[in-house]
Amino acid sequence: MLAVLLKDFKNPSLSVEKIPDPTLKPGQVLVKMAAAPINPSDLIFLRNQYGVKKKLPVVPGFEGSGTVVASNAGFYGRWLVGKRVACRAPEDGNGTWAEYMATDSKGVVPLIKEVTLEQGASLLVNPLTAWALLTLAKKEKHRGFVQTAAASALGQMMERLSRRWRMVSINIVRRREQVERLKKDGAVHVLDSSAPGFEEQLHVLSERYKIRLAFDAVGGDLTSRVASAMPPGSKVIVYGALAGENCQMSPLSLIFEDKKMEGFWLSQWVKKLGFWRKMSMAYGAQKLLSSDLSTHIQARYPLEKVEDAIALYKEKRTEGKILLMPKVL
Amino acid sequence: MLAVLLKDFKNPSLSVEKIPDPTLKPGQVLVKMAAAPINPSDLIFLRNQYGVKKKLPVVPGFEGSGTVVASNAGFYGRWLVGKRVACRAPEDGNGTWAEYMATDSKGVVPLIKEVTLEQGASLLVNPLTAWALLTLAKKEKHRGFVQTAAASALGQMMERLSRRWRMVSINIVRRREQVERLKKDGAVHVLDSSAPGFEEQLHVLSERYKIRLAFDAVGGDLTSRVASAMPPGSKVIVYGALAGENCQMSPLSLIFEDKKMEGFWLSQWVKKLGFWRKMSMAYGAQKLLSSDLSTHIQARYPLEKVEDAIALYKEKRTEGKILLMPKVL
Repeated sequence: MLAVLLKDFKNPSLSVEKIPDPTLKPGQVLVKMAAAPINPSDLIFLRNQYGVKKKLPVVPGFEGSGTVVASNAGFYGRWLVGKRVACRAPEDGNGTWAEYMATDSKGVVPLIKEVTLEQGASLLVNPLTAWALLTLAKKEKHRGFVQTAAASALGQMMERLSRRWRMVSINIVRRREQVERLKKDGAVHVLDSSAPGFEEQLHVLSERYKIRLAFDAVGGDLTSRVASAMPPGSKVIVYGALAGENCQMSPLSLIFEDKKMEGFWLSQWVKKLGFWRKMSMAYGAQKLLSSDLSTHIQARYPLEKVEDAIALYKEKRTEGKILLMPKVL
Repeated sequence: MLAVLLKDFKNPSLSVEKIPDPTLKPGQVLVKMAAAPINPSDLIFLRNQYGVKKKLPVVPGFEGSGTVVASNAGFYGRWLVGKRVACRAPEDGNGTWAEYMATDSKGVVPLIKEVTLEQGASLLVNPLTAWALLTLAKKEKHRGFVQTAAASALGQMMERLSRRWRMVSINIVRRREQVERLKKDGAVHVLDSSAPGFEEQLHVLSERYKIRLAFDAVGGDLTSRVASAMPPGSKVIVYGALAGENCQMSPLSLIFEDKKMEGFWLSQWVKKLGFWRKMSMAYGAQKLLSSDLSTHIQARYPLEKVEDAIALYKEKRTEGKILLMPKVL
C-alpha cells in the first residue's frame, strides 16, 4: 500500500512509499482510508513533542475516516465490517496517512448516514474536544468560559456549541478581522487581544457573567493576560500551544487571587469514559457535524503531496482543514 | 508616636513622622512594638502589588513583636494585657513599623518564655509559612517536595522542618556557594539551577523519591524548568515571586504530563483554620523558634533609618532578616 512515512525526528522530512499492507493483531480492524486531516497535534508529533512516542519509521496521522474491510476483533469488530467509520490511530503503530490502517476496534466509531466521509474524517479530534471541554465546564458548574484561539476551527465549534447549550462564551481572537468573522457567525462576545483596552474589557465581561474558567490554546504571555483579567479563583485549562511558547502566569495573581492552571488531553480524558458513554458522545457530536460542529475543508491532497499539504496548512491554518486522501474524489 | 508612613504608591518614598497614637476599635488590642522585620511581602506591598490594598497614608509592616498595653477586646484581649506577643497588622489599617499598633486580638499570639522579642518578631510569616506548606504537603500525602529559593530564610526553615518531619526535600538554589552552605547545615539533596545537568539531576531525584510537589518562590523560567523535569502529575505551588517575572509552564507538559500550577497565600490559608488550630500551630512553631525555625538577624535599625534598612535588605536579602526597632536595644 501507499503510505506517508516519518523516518527521522531530527530531520523530519516525510517520504511517500509503498510498504506492506498492515496485518491485524487481536482486537484490531482494518480500515480502508478515505480521508485524514492535518491537525495541530500532528505537527506536534512530527516535532517529537507529542505525549505518545512511537518507534520510527512510522505512518503519521492521528485521525481519519474510511471503511472497515476486515476484522480480528470479536463481535463489535465483525459488526463494523463494511461500515463507514471515523477512526483513530493505535497508540503504538502506524496512523491514518496511508491507504490502509490497522487499529483497535475501540478507536473506531461508525458514522451515521447523514455524515460524509470527509466530515467524519475530523470527528474524533475537534468535535469531540469541543464536546469534552464544554462537558467538563458544565460538570464543574461553570455557566460559561473564556477561550483563546476562538477563530480556530475548534474555537468556532466551542462557540457554537456554547450557544446551543446556553453557556456564555467570551471569545478571544488575535486579529481584528477575526472579530467581524465570528460576530457574523453569531458570536456575542468577541475580543481582540491586540486591541487597546483588551484586558479591561475582558475584566468587565468576565466579572459581569462571573466566568471563572478559561480554555487556552495559545500560550505565551496571552495566558497570563487572560488569567490576570479574570475574577479571583479563576482556572485556566491549557489544551493547545499555538504560540509555541511557554504559558505564563503572574505569581501575584496565583498567590493573591487563587488562580490555577492545568492541562487537558483528549486521549487521557476519553480513556476514563466507559465504552457506551464514549459511543453516546460520538453519536451526539455526529448529529451536529453538519451544523455547529462542521469542519470547513479548504483543500484536498493526495498522499504523494503531503509536504505541499503541510506547507499550506502552516501558512493558512485558520482557513480550514486540509485533507489527505489516498484517492482524491 | 513615631511611625514610618507610606503616602504615595507611585513615588514610594517613606517618611518617618509623629502621628497620633492609635485608638482601639472593638476587638482590638494595643501593642507597644519592640521589633518588626522587613519581609518580601512588605516590598510587594510598597510596590502596590499585594493582595490587600490599604488606604494611604498608611504605616507599612505586616508582622512584628511587642507587649500588649491595652485592650478593647473581651476576655482573650484582657488576658493578653502585659504579655509579650507576636502580632500581625490589621487588614485595613496601620502596620508594625511604628511605636504602637492597634490590631485585632485574633492576630496576636502570646510568646512562650523561651522566645525572645527579636525571634518572635518573625514568627507569623516565615515559620508559619514553612509549617503551613509542609502541613499541606503531608495532608495531600506527599512524601516530600522540591523547593526553589532553598537558600532563603524560609527555604532553610522548610528544609530543616522536612528533616524533623521525615520528609524528603530536594532543594534548589541559584548559586554554587549556596549548595555548600545548605549541605553544611545538613541538607541532603541540594541542586544548583545554574549548573549544567541541573534538569537531569532533578529528574532523576524526583523520580527516585516519587516527588510530585514543588514549592516555588522564584518564578520566571525556573518554574517551567522545575515542573518539566518532575514526574507526570506533578503540581507546582507558587508562594513567592523573587525573580519578579511571570511563572512559566510548558503547555506540552501541562497537556501531556498532567502538570498543574496554583498559588499559596498564608493569610487565606490561616483564615480557614479555627482559633485553636491556629494557636496550636503557633505554639508548635514557637517551640522550634530557637532551632529549625530560627531567624538569623543581620542588622537592627531604628524607625528613622527605614530607607537604609530597606536598601540593605534589597542588597543582601539572603544574609538574614533586618529588624526595625523603635528603640534599638
